Parts: sequence; structure tokens; C-alpha cells
Amino acid sequence: MQDAWLGPFLSEGMKHIGPPPESLPPGADGRLIPLSWGYPSPDSFPLEEMARALRLTLEEEGAASLQYSGGPSCGRLREVLAHLVLARRIHCGPEDILVTTGSNQAIDLVARAFVDPGDVVLVEDPTFFTALRIFQSRAARVRGITVEEDGLSVAELEQVLHDLNRKGERVKVLYLIPSFQNPTGRTLGPRKRARIVELAQRYDFLILEDDAYGLLYYDSPPPPALKSIDDEGRVIYVSTLSKLIAPGIRLGWAVAPPPVLSALRQVKLDAGTSPFMQAFAYRLWEQIGEARADWLRSLYRPRRDAMLAALEKESPEGFRWTRPGGGFFIWVEGPAGFDAASFRPLASGSGVDFIPGANFSGDGKARAGMRLCFSYCSIPEIEEGVSRLARALRQHAGT
Amino acid sequence: MQDAWLGPFLSEGMKHIGPPPESLPPGADGRLIPLSWGYPSPDSFPLEEMARALRLTLEEEGAASLQYSGGPSCGRLREVLAHLVLARRIHCGPEDILVTTGSNQAIDLVARAFVDPGDVVLVEDPTFFTALRIFQSRAARVRGITVEEDGLSVAELEQVLHDLNRKGERVKVLYLIPSFQNPTGRTLGPRKRARIVELAQRYDFLILEDDAYGLLYYDSPPPPALKSIDDEGRVIYVSTLSKLIAPGIRLGWAVAPPPVLSALRQVKLDAGTSPFMQAFAYRLWEQIGEARADWLRSLYRPRRDAMLAALEKESPEGFRWTRPGGGFFIWVEGPAGFDAASFRPLASGSGVDFIPGANFSGDGKARAGMRLCFSYCSIPEIEEGVSRLARALRQHAGT
Repeated sequence: MQDAWLGPFLSEGMKHIGPPPESLPPGADGRLIPLSWGYPSPDSFPLEEMARALRLTLEEEGAASLQYSGGPSCGRLREVLAHLVLARRIHCGPEDILVTTGSNQAIDLVARAFVDPGDVVLVEDPTFFTALRIFQSRAARVRGITVEEDGLSVAELEQVLHDLNRKGERVKVLYLIPSFQNPTGRTLGPRKRARIVELAQRYDFLILEDDAYGLLYYDSPPPPALKSIDDEGRVIYVSTLSKLIAPGIRLGWAVAPPPVLSALRQVKLDAGTSPFMQAFAYRLWEQIGEARADWLRSLYRPRRDAMLAALEKESPEGFRWTRPGGGFFIWVEGPAGFDAASFRPLASGSGVDFIPGANFSGDGKARAGMRLCFSYCSIPEIEEGVSRLARALRQHAGT
Repeated sequence: MQDAWLGPFLSEGMKHIGPPPESLPPGADGRLIPLSWGYPSPDSFPLEEMARALRLTLEEEGAASLQYSGGPSCGRLREVLAHLVLARRIHCGPEDILVTTGSNQAIDLVARAFVDPGDVVLVEDPTFFTALRIFQSRAARVRGITVEEDGLSVAELEQVLHDLNRKGERVKVLYLIPSFQNPTGRTLGPRKRARIVELAQRYDFLILEDDAYGLLYYDSPPPPALKSIDDEGRVIYVSTLSKLIAPGIRLGWAVAPPPVLSALRQVKLDAGTSPFMQAFAYRLWEQIGEARADWLRSLYRPRRDAMLAALEKESPEGFRWTRPGGGFFIWVEGPAGFDAASFRPLASGSGVDFIPGANFSGDGKARAGMRLCFSYCSIPEIEEGVSRLARALRQHAGT
């Protein structure tokens, strides 16, 4: 069968969806320091406690957790999550929570329940590439709003809302990562948060708040979640256990008011999120929960500091970077005309990798940016990685 | 927030999707023999081997399998699956396989990649309710084709294709469960299989073959998969480890030609199927694989036989049922005018439950049917369950 044969079968969304970031092979000498993917540190996995939690899950509720529906731990996990979001000032009960297969599925459910082809979805530009691709897969009109030092430009948001409104058009969803944003690491200020919730009420749209990094602060906690100041039930809050436990268990969750939650359940057509993984996560959290976020903060804080120091020391002129108070990422922007995607092969050939800005932007606005991840690599690797990157940048400028 | 507030936000698909089957509470005396849900037997889970496989996964590839991408076991699991489908006469390599979060996700990916609002999707009537809801969630025009003794009515299929063709309309996908169909237990004959593949070529549509039960035969193996006689790459084959290992691990897979597989990967926006569960499944299969399907056959065969014998002995006049050669289900049809959904509360009040036919049908055609599952309950429970059902039916007829 020729590939062309399939063309007429492709759905509308397939025609809109951008490619995912590629993985590049290492350089000629086989080295590659991955400052690219947003992986947690491999040292962060509590293997002993995990072994114990897995054993207990099998022994104490094996039969239930291996079926479709799960046993009592699924409900208890929702209680844990309801408790966890208290730190983000969200008051909810287990009945307000839907556990999903990673927070990506939660974002996807929102898109399926509320977004049709041609609908306007607003996102930060740059933003998390999978969220972008999820909205593109619904054939939405995705419009990016600039991310400033203190997060999303509210002035630009108001202008866009005003203009759309005048044309009789509406926004369905505003997707944003208010705290330690992916990819910029920037955090939305508290007054902007309040203003955005007001705008959602005035212009009648939903806010999808992705708080994947909200608990991973290294200086002081970020402002309370938008969800915590939402009195109309317009904010759908999603988060993930990928950074707090491990990505490989694929668990995330949504907090939303009853009618929204029931819409999300209608389109969750996957026979449920693994009850075995849910039971495991609950039993693991019983052992590690209390101290976990704090321990992760002390693991990642020095890595962030090391990357900032290395950038300070090594970076060529004309490059600027963010100084995130939490999360996994630093965003480095090159001078006008710098194209991170075309520089990337030279970097990986030099033994260091990053994700180019174009992957985070629907219209390529963020072309000059590079997302560097400081969570995965050790401090010596981070230092060596930034050093390689700086050398490659100088080489690139010289060509 | 009032529920009505959300109305204008709902996507087109949300307006088309039918409700899932409900769970009913047990009768007044707290008893309920669940012949309803398609659960494997709780006795079927190899807990000791599972404990060992989990331990080895953590010890030997914990760090890799807990990240997003996974370690070597993910590739090895695809080799296992390629070997497994050889029994269904499908020759493929690990590179032709996409591992998914249950076969439901595989069905969903096909719908996302290929089905737009208004597209025609053909299904068996009755058919698996989640598949039906997945196509409805794409706002497809879902059209049911009668299931005869030897599977889908090919005459009716030809007529429908002919009529659509004359109107200049096309079918995007034909979804079917050719072997031990859910819910009827019926199996598509070999000549019909060949004819359907020919029709897909002539009328230019894709076939989505769901083979969840293909290895669970109790008399003789079903005819080879449609995929095995597909020389144009029009058949997308999906199956699941839910029945062979356990539903709670949420693993399924698709076998498809490269362009189809690459389309499915484009819309798989979930950051990957749990690599930890994949590594676990591979290591478990290493221990149990060889003998597993045969062991399950000997577990389920007597349960099927017990249910058939109980129906023979107890069933009131006017009721007919299928005699499946495999799978999990027997389909019982009442006389004209019998409405299984309105009978269900009486049954559950009498301590037995089933899934009513209307859930398996887009247009309610299957209203007189009841799906009985024989895999989950023990033989004494099956006998007692059918006896309660028969008593309730007689009571229902008398009212």
C-alpha cells in the first residue's frame, strides 16, 4: 500500500496537528547530554518503597486492582490528591477529582468534551508541545499569547478577547501553565491570576490550568492556583504524579465542578485508568507522601542553581535566559535571527541536546528559544552540557 | 454553576455519545450475581508470577521503565505480541505493532486519525458498547449491520455499501469483532471474512478488526484473522492483554501497515503507554506465556458449558441464546416485545445482573437481548445466577 492511498482517510485534526519534537542521535563520539526531555532525575525514584507498595498492592487487593474497576485504594488515592491540592489552596473532595492516564489525558478529555473544529483556543506562546498538539488534533484555531516575565500578557489577552468579541466570536478554552511554565519556567503573578479569572467570567470561557510543577518550587511557593479563586467553576485544574512519583506510572488528575467532571467522564472511553497503578500510587504515597515534595525540592534546587551559574559563566553574548523559581526548565533565547531548530544538529553533534522553541509554538514565534531541562542530569552533566552548548553556539555564530 | 451553563461549551461529539451501561445496586437482600460486566475470573490472575515480574522490573530496569520512554522490555513486549498473533496467522514484526493503553485506546486512535463528524462508520449490531461510544464521540454516522449465526450479514453489508455508493457517499471504517463477538459470542465464517476484505478493496474502506477473544476458543480455533488475508493493508488489527493477563494493567496493541501506524502515533497524545506496565507484562509473559492461553481455555470452557446447560434447563419459553465457541459472552434474546432494559431492575432485585441489549446498539434494535458473561463467576454462581434470572423472567412475564 502506498502512503498516498491513506490521504483521503485522514481526519481534519490530522491535517492540523504539528509534528512532535524529534529525538536526535548522539554525536559522532556517542556522547549526548540530554538537556532536552523533561524527565525527572533517575535518582528520584524511591525503589525500595515502590517494591514494598507493589507487593502490598498484589497481596492485599490484587484481585480487585487487576480488574477494570479497582478496589478501595482508588478512592483513597483521590483523597490523597484532594489533600495534595490544599497546598495550592484548592478545597475539594475526592468526588471532585477524576484520575487520568497522565495529565496529558486530562488535557485531551477537556479538548474532546469542549473543543470542535474551528473553535478558538488560547494558549501561552510558547507552551507545552503536547497540549498544543492536542488542541491541533481537534482542528481548533489555536492562538498564542505572549509570555512575559510575570507570565501571560494580560493586556494582549484582553485585546484578543475584545477583538474576537467584536467579531461575534468566542473563546472556548484558555490553556495555561501558571506556575514554572513549560517551557519558560515563568510564573504568573497573583494579580494577573485574579484578572484572568475575571476575564473568563466576563467573556464566558473555560480556563484549563495545568499545574504540573506547582509543588516543585525552589525559592518560595507560587501564588495560589487559579482554581482556588474560581467561584463560578470555570477553572479545570489538572496535575500529574509524573514529577512527584514517576512518569512511567502514567497517572494524573483533574479537579473540576460536577457538570464538567461528568462531561470529562463521558469522553473518557478507555475503560478506566489503571486501577493497579492507582492502588500502587496510593500505597506508595502512604510511605513517602509527607516528605516527598520537600525532598524533591532539595534534589532539584541545586541543579537549577548549577544550570543558572553555568549559563552565567559560559553563555555567549546576545543570549538571555529565564530564572525560574521552580519546575524543570530554563528558557534560553538567542539574538534576533537565531533559529534554534537549525542549530540543534550542531549541538547534538557536540554532545548536548535541547528542545528547540518552534516545538512550543503554533506559529513558530518562539524560534529563537531553547528549552533546557535541569531535572534529569546530574550537576556535573549540567555543567558540562551548558559548556558544550556554549561552545557549539560560538561555533555556530562563527559559521 | 448550573449545569445548563455548560451546554454551549459541549463539543459536537458530546451531543452524539450515548450513555455507558449503568451499574445497578444489589437487591434488597444485598445479593447480586454479576453476569453483567466482561471481567476475567479473579482466579485467573497469576499472583505469584506477577509479584516476581514486578520485582524483576524494578530491580533490573526500574530507572528506565519509570520514565516516559521505557527500557528494552518495551521492544521485547512487541516481539512477544508479534509472536502471539502468529496463532491468528498474522505475520508481522515488532515494528508493525503499537502498544496502547488497552485495546480501547487503539480503537479510539483509529477513530481520531480517520473519522470526522458525519463520516459513515459501519459496526455490527449489536456491538461492543465502548467502540460504539468512541465512534459517536467523533460525531460519526454509525450504522449497524445485523449479526447472523455466522457473523455479520454480508448481504446487508453489500446492500448498504451499494446504496451509499450510489449516493456518492463512502464508508470510512468497518469495525467488527469477528471471533466470539461481544456481545453475541458469534464468529464470522471464513468465506465471509474473505468477502469482507474484498469489499473493503472494492469500496475503499478500512477494516478495524477487534480480536480481543481470538485466542480464547473452547472447541476449535476460530478462522484466521481478517488481517491475515489482507494484502492491501486495509485491516487494522487490535487486541488486548486484558483477557490474557488482566484488565487492570491496561495494555492492548494494534497491528497495522506503516502509514496507518504512523497516523495512529500522531494522535497518540498521551506521552506513551506506561513503560512500567509494558516491562512488567513482558517479564510476566516470559514466565506464563507458553501455557497461558491453554490454561485459560480450560478455566473458561466449563463455565461456558455450565451456563449453556443452566439456560437449557431453566430458560422460560420464547427465549433463545447463542452457543459461542469462545470468548466471555452468551447472548440471550427474548420474544418480540421483550425489553431487557426495563426488565433489568427486577433481575437485579432478584440478585442477578446482566447488560441489556440497548447498550450494544446505536438505534435500540437489540432491545430484546441480554448479554450474560460466564467468565467472571464460578460455576455454582453461574448456575444460581441463571436460575434467578429464569425465575425473574417468569415473574416478569406474569406481571
